[in-house]
Amino acid sequence: MRPIPRAETFPVNTPAASQVFTTVLSQGPLARLEVARRVGLSAAAVTKAVRPLIEAGYLVEGADDEARPALGRPANLVRVDGGRALFIGVKVTGDEIIGVLTDLCCRIRVARHVPLPDRAAKAVLASVADLVQDLLTEADGVPVPGLGVAVSGDVDRAEGAVRYSPFLDWRDVPLAELIALTTGLPVTVDNDVRALTVAEQWFGAGAGLSDFAVVTVGAGIGCGLVVHGRVVSGAHGVAGEIGHVAVDPNGPLCHCGNRGCVEAIAGEAAIVRRIREITGAELADAAEALALARRGVAGAREVYARAGEAIGRGIATVANLLGPERVIISGEGLAAYDLFAEQIRDAFVAAAFGSAAQCDVLTRPLPFEEWARGAAATAIQSFVRADV
Amino acid sequence: MRPIPRAETFPVNTPAASQVFTTVLSQGPLARLEVARRVGLSAAAVTKAVRPLIEAGYLVEGADDEARPALGRPANLVRVDGGRALFIGVKVTGDEIIGVLTDLCCRIRVARHVPLPDRAAKAVLASVADLVQDLLTEADGVPVPGLGVAVSGDVDRAEGAVRYSPFLDWRDVPLAELIALTTGLPVTVDNDVRALTVAEQWFGAGAGLSDFAVVTVGAGIGCGLVVHGRVVSGAHGVAGEIGHVAVDPNGPLCHCGNRGCVEAIAGEAAIVRRIREITGAELADAAEALALARRGVAGAREVYARAGEAIGRGIATVANLLGPERVIISGEGLAAYDLFAEQIRDAFVAAAFGSAAQCDVLTRPLPFEEWARGAAATAIQSFVRADV
Repeated sequence: MRPIPRAETFPVNTPAASQVFTTVLSQGPLARLEVARRVGLSAAAVTKAVRPLIEAGYLVEGADDEARPALGRPANLVRVDGGRALFIGVKVTGDEIIGVLTDLCCRIRVARHVPLPDRAAKAVLASVADLVQDLLTEADGVPVPGLGVAVSGDVDRAEGAVRYSPFLDWRDVPLAELIALTTGLPVTVDNDVRALTVAEQWFGAGAGLSDFAVVTVGAGIGCGLVVHGRVVSGAHGVAGEIGHVAVDPNGPLCHCGNRGCVEAIAGEAAIVRRIREITGAELADAAEALALARRGVAGAREVYARAGEAIGRGIATVANLLGPERVIISGEGLAAYDLFAEQIRDAFVAAAFGSAAQCDVLTRPLPFEEWARGAAATAIQSFVRADV
Repeated sequence: MRPIPRAETFPVNTPAASQVFTTVLSQGPLARLEVARRVGLSAAAVTKAVRPLIEAGYLVEGADDEARPALGRPANLVRVDGGRALFIGVKVTGDEIIGVLTDLCCRIRVARHVPLPDRAAKAVLASVADLVQDLLTEADGVPVPGLGVAVSGDVDRAEGAVRYSPFLDWRDVPLAELIALTTGLPVTVDNDVRALTVAEQWFGAGAGLSDFAVVTVGAGIGCGLVVHGRVVSGAHGVAGEIGHVAVDPNGPLCHCGNRGCVEAIAGEAAIVRRIREITGAELADAAEALALARRGVAGAREVYARAGEAIGRGIATVANLLGPERVIISGEGLAAYDLFAEQIRDAFVAAAFGSAAQCDVLTRPLPFEEWARGAAATAIQSFVRADV
């Protein structure tokens, strides 16, 4: 039997050191001087911050073989040793649990899917515990100092509690505490869209940006917002509800009780329902709806076009209010991207006010494991930044 | 002739000291221990930060006569000496310039209105210089270490430049530099709605809140957003454009080119135009439109009701995306508040998603001098916080 990994503490105890490490983590490899420039510290302060991190093996410094100049010495770059610590991310959906083991740079090493036969908190906890045990074995003795869990709905990260999750039918479950008890690991619990946003902020298309949005398209239409460098959580647990921005007062009824919400037009269930109504086709799910539209069935294509228009208007609303540098569109709904990309773009440009239209809107296909990777990113964030 | 006031430097040179002073400024008077609790510093650190500020006369400490306990010693409270320094705020509109002289606590001492016969930058500069000279005389020798100027449109505060102001028909005017040359004062230039938001954040209904919104109702419908304790400016100069959130794709055409924007339904010009169309009445301005509706003329009242509904839906969009603690509705359009308050409230509650409806929505009548006071608040902010 392998020894249980020792509890790992991270040798960072000042805001400056934390900033240096996260900058190298999300934007590295970087020369020390460049780190100093980006975080606004002196070179001496960066050197002081870097030393204990190199000693503890979290950072390594060396010549950059890829960027060797034609003449002179190669630049000495600081980078994170991704293999120094591993993290586990778990996404709980209504049907299954997805778990990933990532390195410190949030690269996935192992991914697992486990069906979820029972949504009761107790059953979910048992499944999560088994999955985590399995992934810990895969870690092969490398320290695993954190576990992140992502759940859709109203999640209070600071308290580690799921306030309300409609998909799981949970209310006020102290999930972080319960999973910490069964796994023995420090646990971070967050809303799934916010977790994905953290992954983009630290390891993706949002790295280095202080203001951006992630819009997820799929069963629901969600949005994670980063403003002034921090993910927006909302004073009352609600934020980023782009799915419930009303774009048409005469539009279809939404499950939230309003009419014409983006989700009531562009969510998967809404698309399937509307295509059924228009074409009379029997459709089991979004995949069949998509196949119908791909075959060029009139009516079906228009439903996707209208969905794209609603999403584009929702994104323009975000841009008009917040003026982000970038909007990253992601989510499993991107499978239909060819059917609504143009409409998203056109509706966004038409509804964006003035220079808000300069916002960079890009798409990022998202394998379903990315949701679990988002959870791992929150665990990495908790580990390296005690103030989060 | 009075001596010209010496240049005043503010004896704060650490982030902690700046935080201590701004907390006392916006939330004081406070006991030292309470200051320590609110900013998360030790009592010793607060004492260290407070000392030079007391020595320089910016803070005073003494027994609180109003809150004297029945038994024991009265609490010793720290407060700002508002009279220690004065500030000038100027709001430039298309028709007039409004100037105020405020104390350090942003209380207005003197207010002046000057008609603006010519909107060319040169003429405006001359008028501003005269007005500032007049207000400096009123300062009566007390140091005036800053001047704030508020202009509607796309303003780059960091650069001190007006990028584009439709009301003034200005493009790329380096206003801060020009006014500094003519007045000799350090100048802060900001967008008018953001300036008003700073006044609410430091000296009004937003004091102590990290996330709130100010919605201004009048000729335009504007919105200032504070997220994570800082005013949102937008990566491309656009933010808070609640006036151009589209709430009805079949609504009236907006000057921005879209249909059904909040401003195209609830801006003063839109209200006047629509009441003219419906009632056939000749109306010179918003005041006459309001008088007609107050007389109970059918049609006119409905136009205000519809405006209220559009504003309420716009506010719900802000709440669904950002989850602010509070929304403060203000602006000269509040003169018609009795005609649309109920509709704002009902539309907000109906369109707010889940617990976003818990957001505290309040109104704050706004004399027109408040816009100039907002400009003064930005000057105070620049003076006491070098990092802003």
